[in-house]
Amino acid sequence: MATTVTKTAHPFDKTRLEALLTRRFFYAPAFDIYQGVAGLYDYGPPGSSLQANIISEWRKHFIVEEGMLEIDTTILTPAPVFETSGHVARFADWMVKDAKTGDVLRADHLVKNVFEARLAGDKEARGLAAQPKEDDKDKKQKKRKDKALKTAAVQLSDEVVAEYERILAQLDNYSGPELGQLCRDYKIMNPDTGNEVSEPQQFNLMFTTSIGPTGQHPGYLRPETAQGHFVNFQRLLEFNNGRVPFASAQIGRSFRNEISPRAGLLRVREFTMAEIEHFVDPDDKRHERFADVRDVELSLLDRDTQSAGSTAPRRMTVGAAVDAGVIANETLGYFVARIYQFLTKVGINPSRLRFRQHMANEMAHYATDCWDAEIENSTGWTECVGCADRAAYDLTVHSKRTGVPLVVREALKDPIITEKEVAEFNKKVLGKTFGRDAGVIQEVVNSLPEEGLIKLKGELAQGSATIVSPDGREFKLAPEILTIERQTLKQSIREFTPNVIEPSFGLGRILYTLLEHSFWSREQDVDRGVLSLPTLVAPTKVLIVPLSVRKFDDLVREVSNKFRKGGVFSRVDDSNQSIGKRYARNDELGTPFGVTLDFASIQNRTMTLRERDTTEQLIGSIDEVVAVVTDLVNGTIDWPAACTRLPRYTGTQNVD
Amino acid sequence: MATTVTKTAHPFDKTRLEALLTRRFFYAPAFDIYQGVAGLYDYGPPGSSLQANIISEWRKHFIVEEGMLEIDTTILTPAPVFETSGHVARFADWMVKDAKTGDVLRADHLVKNVFEARLAGDKEARGLAAQPKEDDKDKKQKKRKDKALKTAAVQLSDEVVAEYERILAQLDNYSGPELGQLCRDYKIMNPDTGNEVSEPQQFNLMFTTSIGPTGQHPGYLRPETAQGHFVNFQRLLEFNNGRVPFASAQIGRSFRNEISPRAGLLRVREFTMAEIEHFVDPDDKRHERFADVRDVELSLLDRDTQSAGSTAPRRMTVGAAVDAGVIANETLGYFVARIYQFLTKVGINPSRLRFRQHMANEMAHYATDCWDAEIENSTGWTECVGCADRAAYDLTVHSKRTGVPLVVREALKDPIITEKEVAEFNKKVLGKTFGRDAGVIQEVVNSLPEEGLIKLKGELAQGSATIVSPDGREFKLAPEILTIERQTLKQSIREFTPNVIEPSFGLGRILYTLLEHSFWSREQDVDRGVLSLPTLVAPTKVLIVPLSVRKFDDLVREVSNKFRKGGVFSRVDDSNQSIGKRYARNDELGTPFGVTLDFASIQNRTMTLRERDTTEQLIGSIDEVVAVVTDLVNGTIDWPAACTRLPRYTGTQNVD
Repeated sequence: MATTVTKTAHPFDKTRLEALLTRRFFYAPAFDIYQGVAGLYDYGPPGSSLQANIISEWRKHFIVEEGMLEIDTTILTPAPVFETSGHVARFADWMVKDAKTGDVLRADHLVKNVFEARLAGDKEARGLAAQPKEDDKDKKQKKRKDKALKTAAVQLSDEVVAEYERILAQLDNYSGPELGQLCRDYKIMNPDTGNEVSEPQQFNLMFTTSIGPTGQHPGYLRPETAQGHFVNFQRLLEFNNGRVPFASAQIGRSFRNEISPRAGLLRVREFTMAEIEHFVDPDDKRHERFADVRDVELSLLDRDTQSAGSTAPRRMTVGAAVDAGVIANETLGYFVARIYQFLTKVGINPSRLRFRQHMANEMAHYATDCWDAEIENSTGWTECVGCADRAAYDLTVHSKRTGVPLVVREALKDPIITEKEVAEFNKKVLGKTFGRDAGVIQEVVNSLPEEGLIKLKGELAQGSATIVSPDGREFKLAPEILTIERQTLKQSIREFTPNVIEPSFGLGRILYTLLEHSFWSREQDVDRGVLSLPTLVAPTKVLIVPLSVRKFDDLVREVSNKFRKGGVFSRVDDSNQSIGKRYARNDELGTPFGVTLDFASIQNRTMTLRERDTTEQLIGSIDEVVAVVTDLVNGTIDWPAACTRLPRYTGTQNVD
Repeated sequence: MATTVTKTAHPFDKTRLEALLTRRFFYAPAFDIYQGVAGLYDYGPPGSSLQANIISEWRKHFIVEEGMLEIDTTILTPAPVFETSGHVARFADWMVKDAKTGDVLRADHLVKNVFEARLAGDKEARGLAAQPKEDDKDKKQKKRKDKALKTAAVQLSDEVVAEYERILAQLDNYSGPELGQLCRDYKIMNPDTGNEVSEPQQFNLMFTTSIGPTGQHPGYLRPETAQGHFVNFQRLLEFNNGRVPFASAQIGRSFRNEISPRAGLLRVREFTMAEIEHFVDPDDKRHERFADVRDVELSLLDRDTQSAGSTAPRRMTVGAAVDAGVIANETLGYFVARIYQFLTKVGINPSRLRFRQHMANEMAHYATDCWDAEIENSTGWTECVGCADRAAYDLTVHSKRTGVPLVVREALKDPIITEKEVAEFNKKVLGKTFGRDAGVIQEVVNSLPEEGLIKLKGELAQGSATIVSPDGREFKLAPEILTIERQTLKQSIREFTPNVIEPSFGLGRILYTLLEHSFWSREQDVDRGVLSLPTLVAPTKVLIVPLSVRKFDDLVREVSNKFRKGGVFSRVDDSNQSIGKRYARNDELGTPFGVTLDFASIQNRTMTLRERDTTEQLIGSIDEVVAVVTDLVNGTIDWPAACTRLPRYTGTQNVD
């Protein structure tokens, strides 16, 4: 009975989507009545609710399902923490300044934008691609602040095209000075002004502040939540009864003072992250549940493919990728697969999702392996989740700086038995013979390697042994002062610094790409935007539409209460507009179901049920419809199944 | 069958509670491996979970129940917003400096601490109170940074005692210079050093930062979430179909650079707030649902009582308080009652909860009325929720500064008909006669009040009228240039700036006082701490305790899955400790229920169920126990009812 819906009848139109998102207050530039500051966005009711539902699903999928330890740590962070972590020295982007205006641009973005514009111009000159679509009607309303790059239809040589494409494929691999070299070699100017740009300089992306009334504590706003996990490692380990593996998880705000935040929610200065730190034995990175995800198939864009200048991913199962060493270990592979499952569950189109491996220069020096979940959208492929094996770096540096051991002490089932030479002094005789030099002598002997001790032992067996102090003095030792014997040692505790696997989610980026993937217009009416958000994350699950205000108040209250009892989040639209207009508003809000209360509801206690994507309508008693909607929202049935439970409604209800 | 439990057998011991909270990682000083910075706390797994459950209940109680519009706005805020709101000028505390060491103290806290110490010394001298309890065993572990106030047993005159008490009762009413006067009059020194203190100076509590790479945008970290609501008022109003009343709600981090944050979670520099801004017609502050709360009885400490130097609250119903004008209006009263219901629902002891009205100096000049929910705890009465009628202040100042109208336009059912005198010029003749002075003449006439126009009209009827320009020149106007007529005007739109009622919750304070109210020790064993958190907010609802590791893995998985399907959050404790020790750990974590899996579970498929407070145990089949626990957690039955559904378990299960 369910009809198929063509969601691709009209090409994706970003301007229409943005207009919808603003009109329905999914989100909006923060402080816009004050002209605001770039890179800050406020979420309105549907955006907040969508975000809350994505977070709730994240919590279920990761924290509850995997028994992770959730924490909530502070944003304000004293400077020493980020000095240790390396952020003060290295958490920076390369920026260039316009030589005349002083405008600031991010160096890698500049190169990317200019090369892409030149390649587009080349295609145009070759007659390969249509002109970028211009919709005059919308153009006037657009008011985009970023000046468009001038795409001159200039044909390039085949070699230059290949070179540009090769550079673009590995742009993340370029250092600041190398980006500067590219600007000179390829005559890259500021496209807004045509002026030359300066040498790239580093700009630290952390926001600074000062803690306390006397200004004695410089601090930063965290650019990620991870350090809050690491500094609490001891307490977390204890909470987990001293055992690894375990994971901590945190959802919270982070801040990055982006150089040029221009792309809506994709590059902002304040954002919500969800981060997991999975602590694991460095000698055993297998994962207990790896078998559950072994067959999950992914698009993997590995390091070698990128180095060869290609961006074509390979389809592989996680199992095959780990077996072949493409993904470094089981635990990393497990999380890559779980990330895939999460993203597709909340509604990301799997055909527009790939995992890209970091290249050598791009990855931190200590990391073992790193994969980004990239989601395709109108601006290209965007990193939305990172998944890195950070080895023992973080715990090691914090432990070194603070002197606090951040280690696991594991009782060994089979103690490790080792034999080694052990030197023992007769301290009394030693002291009597050498006086204050006794200390030096002990130090020299105790610092000898195994071979040194064996040599001394041999000399002692011959009658006496000679050692040399660091300042060149010789001491002759007799067997009654020093004995060296082979001893058997038993080690029953193993102490190690765990490694960290870190899946790190940018929730705003996921939310925005999800909105793009969900947006379409009805075939018969391009103006009627629909957001086909999955019921799981839709801000509101069902809209209650009374035919008119007041008359149906009691019924509205009854139906609302029934939905609330069933755990279904509903809203009422009792505005004065026509039912059709209210449903159209609802489609824009991504609400999957709507029920209408009219005179038949009063007389027959029936209600119609409308599905957002197909616009099909069913009819049934109030209780039947509530039951069907509850099942739909809980995911126990889908719409075709609902259509078998209730008769179709084709227009008018019988009212006697 | 359920036995009664004496929770007050031992006096409340803050040191024991704090040790428990640290040991079980409810929360801990942030960055303590770095020695940290005062006023920052991290929440561990049980603290995060408790906070999440309080927030979840808050969302249900306020946002869902009242159909509020949830938003999520940025923490980073450009400076002009807080210049407009008044925070840059006035969001400050008075601090004094130690004249020799330069140590900084909050002036009001200094006066309070010194007066309280003197009053305690007086009581001691009179033999009225026992010495503060000192527990030597704990003392060594304490390492409290704040030096204890020296409580000298000095008797004061009765007049001085009365004076101190009067000042303390209205301390919030003192300005900075007045606090300085108190320090001089009463010889108040820094109790840590005995040195004099400086004159009080203002210290702004907002953290500053700079937004963007060029430092051109000074910004602040918000000290409250409220401005995020106000700057989005237009969008919210539109989302609500242009109608008031409606409320927006937001849960999020805020920051205050406290001068001396010393009291654990009660005075911190970073904290989570939940704020509601209820926008209402200034001419109609009735509340639709006021009847639902009319009979809620509260302890009210009103302004007059405090001014009279007393701190004894009155018991009154909300209805009576609004009727008598003690609480300014229905909407404010409605929220005060809803706050009371929320706090007691999550577990705050109602006998330790009062609502204190702000005194004149304490309240912002624009506010109509303000009540704080204060919760008693070991440090005294602490403000945990504020509830203010802020009148039209916020929207007015933002609108004035930005030029953006932040108003409601309401279609009037009955248009307002008014009659007034209207001046009309014959512009052609006016221009011909007066040339460039025509403009001045029009301005003068148009700015005349009603009486002025009537007077002019009279003169015109006499032949001509004379007016005087601001620079003193006289102009004689003839009736063919100016006519004045009485006209009937119809106004069908009413435009107004809504008022704001603002309930504002400090979640960390509520969480901490709840922990104090929930903490007790078993009568037979003072070391066995228990947190009797209500099931509704308890971090974990049920603990699964297998008799030993490995053997019961399948059963543990089965029972976990059954709980998860029933929506009951469980955790497994499969550590090697005895079941008794695991239950004791569990009592400290506030987990209300525990189930044990042992050999009988394998053979008979039974399970025992233990209740935290009574330590009573019941027994039943796995499915029966899961069903009973699910009902307990959902609140459909209580423990005595559970005891009628399952037989009591008294020690040993039958294993064949």
